[in-house]
Amino acid sequence: MIGRKSSARPRATELGLQLGLLPRGEHNSITDVEGVAVGHTTLIEGDGPMRIGSGPVRTGVTVIMPHQRGLFRHKVTAAVHVLNGFGKAVGFLQVQELGVIETPIALTGTLSTWRVADALIDFLAGSNPGVYSFNPIVGECNDGFLNDIIGRHVEAKHVFDAINGATTPNVEEGNVGAGAGMTGFGWKAGIGTASRICHGVDATYTVGALTLTNTGDPRELRIGGVEVGRHILPPGMSDESGGSTMMVLGTDAPVTARQLGRIARRAGLGLARVGGIASHGSGDFVIAFSNSYERPDIDDAALTPLFRAAVEATEEAIVNSILRSETTVGRDGNTRYEIPIDRLGELLTVRC
Amino acid sequence: MIGRKSSARPRATELGLQLGLLPRGEHNSITDVEGVAVGHTTLIEGDGPMRIGSGPVRTGVTVIMPHQRGLFRHKVTAAVHVLNGFGKAVGFLQVQELGVIETPIALTGTLSTWRVADALIDFLAGSNPGVYSFNPIVGECNDGFLNDIIGRHVEAKHVFDAINGATTPNVEEGNVGAGAGMTGFGWKAGIGTASRICHGVDATYTVGALTLTNTGDPRELRIGGVEVGRHILPPGMSDESGGSTMMVLGTDAPVTARQLGRIARRAGLGLARVGGIASHGSGDFVIAFSNSYERPDIDDAALTPLFRAAVEATEEAIVNSILRSETTVGRDGNTRYEIPIDRLGELLTVRC
Amino acid sequence: MIGRKSSARPRATELGLQLGLLPRGEHNSITDVEGVAVGHTTLIEGDGPMRIGSGPVRTGVTVIMPHQRGLFRHKVTAAVHVLNGFGKAVGFLQVQELGVIETPIALTGTLSTWRVADALIDFLAGSNPGVYSFNPIVGECNDGFLNDIIGRHVEAKHVFDAINGATTPNVEEGNVGAGAGMTGFGWKAGIGTASRICHGVDATYTVGALTLTNTGDPRELRIGGVEVGRHILPPGMSDESGGSTMMVLGTDAPVTARQLGRIARRAGLGLARVGGIASHGSGDFVIAFSNSYERPDIDDAALTPLFRAAVEATEEAIVNSILRSETTVGRDGNTRYEIPIDRLGELLTVRC
Amino acid sequence: MIGRKSSARPRATELGLQLGLLPRGEHNSITDVEGVAVGHTTLIEGDGPMRIGSGPVRTGVTVIMPHQRGLFRHKVTAAVHVLNGFGKAVGFLQVQELGVIETPIALTGTLSTWRVADALIDFLAGSNPGVYSFNPIVGECNDGFLNDIIGRHVEAKHVFDAINGATTPNVEEGNVGAGAGMTGFGWKAGIGTASRICHGVDATYTVGALTLTNTGDPRELRIGGVEVGRHILPPGMSDESGGSTMMVLGTDAPVTARQLGRIARRAGLGLARVGGIASHGSGDFVIAFSNSYERPDIDDAALTPLFRAAVEATEEAIVNSILRSETTVGRDGNTRYEIPIDRLGELLTVRC
Repeated sequence: MIGRKSSARPRATELGLQLGLLPRGEHNSITDVEGVAVGHTTLIEGDGPMRIGSGPVRTGVTVIMPHQRGLFRHKVTAAVHVLNGFGKAVGFLQVQELGVIETPIALTGTLSTWRVADALIDFLAGSNPGVYSFNPIVGECNDGFLNDIIGRHVEAKHVFDAINGATTPNVEEGNVGAGAGMTGFGWKAGIGTASRICHGVDATYTVGALTLTNTGDPRELRIGGVEVGRHILPPGMSDESGGSTMMVLGTDAPVTARQLGRIARRAGLGLARVGGIASHGSGDFVIAFSNSYERPDIDDAALTPLFRAAVEATEEAIVNSILRSETTVGRDGNTRYEIPIDRLGELLTVRC
Repeated sequence: MIGRKSSARPRATELGLQLGLLPRGEHNSITDVEGVAVGHTTLIEGDGPMRIGSGPVRTGVTVIMPHQRGLFRHKVTAAVHVLNGFGKAVGFLQVQELGVIETPIALTGTLSTWRVADALIDFLAGSNPGVYSFNPIVGECNDGFLNDIIGRHVEAKHVFDAINGATTPNVEEGNVGAGAGMTGFGWKAGIGTASRICHGVDATYTVGALTLTNTGDPRELRIGGVEVGRHILPPGMSDESGGSTMMVLGTDAPVTARQLGRIARRAGLGLARVGGIASHGSGDFVIAFSNSYERPDIDDAALTPLFRAAVEATEEAIVNSILRSETTVGRDGNTRYEIPIDRLGELLTVRC
Repeated sequence: MIGRKSSARPRATELGLQLGLLPRGEHNSITDVEGVAVGHTTLIEGDGPMRIGSGPVRTGVTVIMPHQRGLFRHKVTAAVHVLNGFGKAVGFLQVQELGVIETPIALTGTLSTWRVADALIDFLAGSNPGVYSFNPIVGECNDGFLNDIIGRHVEAKHVFDAINGATTPNVEEGNVGAGAGMTGFGWKAGIGTASRICHGVDATYTVGALTLTNTGDPRELRIGGVEVGRHILPPGMSDESGGSTMMVLGTDAPVTARQLGRIARRAGLGLARVGGIASHGSGDFVIAFSNSYERPDIDDAALTPLFRAAVEATEEAIVNSILRSETTVGRDGNTRYEIPIDRLGELLTVRC
Repeated sequence: MIGRKSSARPRATELGLQLGLLPRGEHNSITDVEGVAVGHTTLIEGDGPMRIGSGPVRTGVTVIMPHQRGLFRHKVTAAVHVLNGFGKAVGFLQVQELGVIETPIALTGTLSTWRVADALIDFLAGSNPGVYSFNPIVGECNDGFLNDIIGRHVEAKHVFDAINGATTPNVEEGNVGAGAGMTGFGWKAGIGTASRICHGVDATYTVGALTLTNTGDPRELRIGGVEVGRHILPPGMSDESGGSTMMVLGTDAPVTARQLGRIARRAGLGLARVGGIASHGSGDFVIAFSNSYERPDIDDAALTPLFRAAVEATEEAIVNSILRSETTVGRDGNTRYEIPIDRLGELLTVRC
């Protein structure tokens, strides 16, 4: 099955959770940053024992478009941050040097990283004749517990579909796109998104986050001040050594690449609020971009609200990525369970 | 008054708080790492309007000795991490390059940083004749709200006193040493410490943290899963723009400098658990050392418990630095209030 | 034509050049580091106007094997350095975090980067069943002036051929492997290698360098103290904006990853000796590894000879990469000329 | 003796040296960048055996003022780079975070670093009442071979004198200011400066360098393409393990802090052209600033001429720092000899 929609499971808002101090954007999504579009191609096929190259398939690709006006010609200011570098992210070194992103940002399963990067070349070369250098940006988490990861089932056409089908607003979450086969704090997890509004002296800015969650020890999960991991654990303990989290931040604030770097470094604090400790095997990476048309003109002393927004939006995106994911049986019968909403709701009620 | 003892206010343990998954060390202090000693010189003198150079004085110096056998001759493996570089920390660049610390680690008020560094030279030159280069390590937070900071009242003798009076075990916390004039999440704060025990396959290691807390927005304070800042705020809102946190981590695990760097990067996640967002003006720095005699021999795949210990010990040290501090009236009548233990206890009880 | 041999053009040694202070290794090649093997697959096909996907092809792939005993199971200590990050190098972030390389190091043309990385997955997955994560290392330079770069003509089989055909000793240089379509200081360039011997108090170590040269302004070329670029310029000025240099350093010294990082940072000084300024468009990257079996046990104070070796070997490898390359006509009749050895010899003679 | 003038020894220009491709600025000094001023206080007192605290004194302080209109109120864009971090440079971490310098840049002998930093606080606090945080910038090299370094003879008044006496143009070089007791490539060295002009499409920019040279193995010295170290060595071989180079770059180009970081990273390539290998003990640091009033507006693709200027100006500043220094006898009769100009001139002539 391709293109499967995310479930009707609740977001943090629908559970009445207030995470942080700042107001949410209209759709509480990275697409609240005007111009940003998100697309997913979800690949779920087959059941039973793994046959490498055949499946079962529980993977996909998610693309974040900082804008849809041709990224190579209209690069966006960008920064990256590596919280824990056990990961294969592609394209980060050039962003560190030049402070721009010139391609869609793609997320996928670990071993599909380079084929997805290569597909971005196809996409870009087609629309930019005469250009012989592109810097594709790809982030990844390892979906090998549920998915035939060696089979590398994400093909170039899936990347094109995600790009061409990118929409705004977009609040698809859970088992969609790159999130199809992921695990968060022992529970089925995947894609989540959220946003925050920052009111400044002269202007109002939006910061959005989209995360691909695949990290965390079940005992450490915290949601909205409730230490969930002390009360609910998934059937069958998860191995804490694996993992990774890809955190994408977008904003319309006219900041420099250096300032975006400061913002990017706050995403990890959002992960920590959910209980993440960036374990050895958890490749935790952040990509931040600004699609503002304006020349950068924000004093660093005014950045704190943007930092706060980055922390809060990341926290809530991760929470959503767990709340919205559904139980998934993958290769060899390996199963990740959805977090039980009823039980979680009880815990949250007691707290209030 | 010099050498004032810390108060009888409770630590996190005494409030029944369980922070994280790992067991605490014997004294729940960085001095649980065998060989580590801590010393404080606390400077509290005068009241009323500030007269630069005269006071009032609410400052001091804290030293952490990785061991007391002569640090220059017996350097310890070390790493640093800069979470938010708005600060004046001294000596970090050489630690990044060489992976060792060769002097006591001193913490103090911002503008005393360089005099304290220079005092470390006096201390080291005296005991290492013929050596013409030393790399003093000094961290700082800004105590200018309560203290005549321009007056730079920390003198060389105060540094020597702190070094020579360093003890183990040491659980002095709150308004001691460098903590005399600090503020955490709007409340009076200062020095805090904590430790965690990591049971590995072949060995048991201790990780200790000592923090000098001077950061945080009152609304964001979280203690043990309770969002304190939603319920209790200090009289008179704190300015969120200031701040800083100095986080010192020690361990007896035989790790390399690169591995210590990985451990150091987790301290910020502990700060985040308490609600910190590393605001623009908050210079948040981490120093980590190992005083193991053994050659490094830990596989990176076994580091996760040490990462967890770093997160948890830092979290609890920050909590202790707030719990243990007492209301302080400083220069020009500026006042920082102690967090009310009764009210806090009620909140924690409701949660349980 | 595939597998074309390098030419009979002279190396620096054959011109009587003495570059630096240290003695060369036996073959003056990175393969002087015991256990290191190098393999090239050279792809030279077609002539005339470029038809994307068809050619002409002037590209290839070069692999450096730190050892041939199974890299994933027997990882080698490693470090990377980014002198100028305008490039697409793959796998560096994980090396920065973990300090090891677990795959062959591959070099290729820019747009083949990700297909080559994906081919390394095929290679590794085949020999490591049950492993679901690998960190391929690929460096690249842009051969688009001579080669149909969009066509991405390097296939997985070419990567396997280079790995399986890797040899030691190996002094193939010039238009081989990834070097087929490169340009250095305006002249035809490609692969070069060199080595240096460091005599220490207790042991003798070898440092080898292999470079893929594709950078430099013709006016700035310096060889052995002669400012060549003041006297000889290639027909038709080269555009200075392009470029890149991939520098691979290997050693048998038992150093830590942190120490290797220090060594890696010296490679850029070797590039500078040849006249390189790391122009905007020149992605200049360094990968360094140690294949020593021994536990690291070298005091940093003893590293200077290894630093010197890194500078000198890199310098000479770059010089060799230019000396040994032959005139090449590529796509659309684009031509890069070999540096005229006779004229160069005259300049060097006048100097002596 | 205080305030001693530099000697009449020749600069690179006076020896007919052409270093690089770009034209020099009017005075071939960092003060060619409009607004920049430089001041030196030179401390040369006493002879004979060292008595710590008494002398002999061969030290000083050099200040570079990016402008003289009040740096704290009118901060300048800045970046730093650490080529080899074995050094005590102060203030770099905050520059890395915020991208600005808010104080004069001071250079001095290693163990005077913190007293000079503290003196900058005196200077700044006096002219900025009500401000309680400043980030002094101090770089250092070790003059302990000639100077009573433990004695720390640079006092606050010497720093004030250097600031208040800063002039433009300023081409004082050699044994002035911080350069009084330094050694370069085994020869007496000290302060050097140079500048380059970059003609762009729309504007002409100046890049200036000032270096404090105290690094290098005599055998590796290269001046203008001549391998001086193969022909002339100082009496008594210098120990290669010591050293350090402080490189200060200034420009009027309206670049961002990120772009200045790219420029700063090229200074090390200038050091390499003179033969430097950044040996273990050589703390090699770069500080770069732009004092442009304009908002940054230079595309990265146009930066290459500024990179070249940084390489060339640094190279020439180092050469000048050696050429212009005079033989100095210091503590305990320790002597550093000036490079013999006659012999050097012969070598340069043969080359031409």
